[in-house]
Amino acid sequence: MALFSSLTPVFVAVLCVIIGFIIKNSQKKHESRSKEKRSDGGKVRPWVDEDLQEDTEINSKDNEDDYEWLETEDKENLHHIPYTPHQYSASEILERSERFYSLMNHRRSVRFISPEPVPREVINNVIRTAGTAPSGAHTEPWTFVVVSDADVKHKIREIVEEEEEINYKQRMGDKWVHDLKRLRTNWVKEYLDIAPYLILIFKQIYGVHPNDKKKTHYYNEISVSIACGILLAALQVSDF
Amino acid sequence: MALFSSLTPVFVAVLCVIIGFIIKNSQKKHESRSKEKRSDGGKVRPWVDEDLQEDTEINSKDNEDDYEWLETEDKENLHHIPYTPHQYSASEILERSERFYSLMNHRRSVRFISPEPVPREVINNVIRTAGTAPSGAHTEPWTFVVVSDADVKHKIREIVEEEEEINYKQRMGDKWVHDLKRLRTNWVKEYLDIAPYLILIFKQIYGVHPNDKKKTHYYNEISVSIACGILLAALQVSDF
Repeated sequence: MALFSSLTPVFVAVLCVIIGFIIKNSQKKHESRSKEKRSDGGKVRPWVDEDLQEDTEINSKDNEDDYEWLETEDKENLHHIPYTPHQYSASEILERSERFYSLMNHRRSVRFISPEPVPREVINNVIRTAGTAPSGAHTEPWTFVVVSDADVKHKIREIVEEEEEINYKQRMGDKWVHDLKRLRTNWVKEYLDIAPYLILIFKQIYGVHPNDKKKTHYYNEISVSIACGILLAALQVSDF
Repeated sequence: MALFSSLTPVFVAVLCVIIGFIIKNSQKKHESRSKEKRSDGGKVRPWVDEDLQEDTEINSKDNEDDYEWLETEDKENLHHIPYTPHQYSASEILERSERFYSLMNHRRSVRFISPEPVPREVINNVIRTAGTAPSGAHTEPWTFVVVSDADVKHKIREIVEEEEEINYKQRMGDKWVHDLKRLRTNWVKEYLDIAPYLILIFKQIYGVHPNDKKKTHYYNEISVSIACGILLAALQVSDF
């Protein structure tokens, strides 16, 4: 399971890039079109989060005839699940917080992975757990893909290594490569062949409504990264 | 503690904006300067992650006389901590993964917070746990600020509510506001006064070396968000 400790931001980002790329073209169209529209210049401040700006632009194209469908979705979503937290004493809470810190503090971002098999059901539980993460407007903008087939794993390794080699040699710049040197990382990732399972994590920049309308995923990268943090915790708790 | 379940991406983002703003100006200068430099156009592909592009630009300014200091830093950082994972049986791993899923699946993003006091040491443990998160090139680009003073909490509430009101009324667009409607959220956040503690989470876009040189923080937003996911897990484990 140690593989998943190696889902470092860099690795997550590399995978995000793949889906990001597929979607970019169609999105560019939206943006350029909507930019023309907004000759009013809009009331945007320099310190406003990207998502808020981008999104307002996309909206100006989207939200014309979406409403009818959304209204019905609202009705379906108005049932509430009561929140009934456990009641621990102050000393119990303190002890639990110490135990969890010590457990998580043993996690390492390892690059040498055991080929030892893992029950598939464990992978499912870990992904279910990641799926409990909060997300912008509860859009849950993530896709988790589990790969165990040796050929597919190897094809993924080839894509990742090709991109990473370009990162190290061209995109990162001398200083970044230098900063990584002490971590002894490079673009060769044998562990992608060796690990029994790969979990590929994709951010969904947007979703699609049943009526084929585009569904905006607010703060999709932040949301997916939070889910990754919970996924790392689930892996560490399960196996350490 | 339930407050922290309300550290949704939106909220995290709002807080990130503050530090983002402070730093933006100095960074803008870098970028424009370096853009001029790169008349070669650079070998950047459309699907490359922002951080890689931005960063290459910043580097072209940065990495001139940084080396000497970094070399000595390398030497200091070359001690290794052996990784000795616990060995559980397949059935133990399965059971642990199920228990953790059920625990995390009870987390809710609540907006009604109990004023009940919490031992400060619990907050410290939870933040220590978040600090075990992986980060790009191990830069740990996060700052956690704990606030318990009622006046400071109220000032923070005023800033957050002012920005959020502008978000809802101007920046988000009708569709976003509509998508949030079923979550019953708005820009009023009493819980920022009521919660015994606020944890403000800042992303450090860059750090500063002892020699006053700028230290690039790679994938800082992804890294901080992963730490937030682990923080949410720590809060849920401690209190649920």
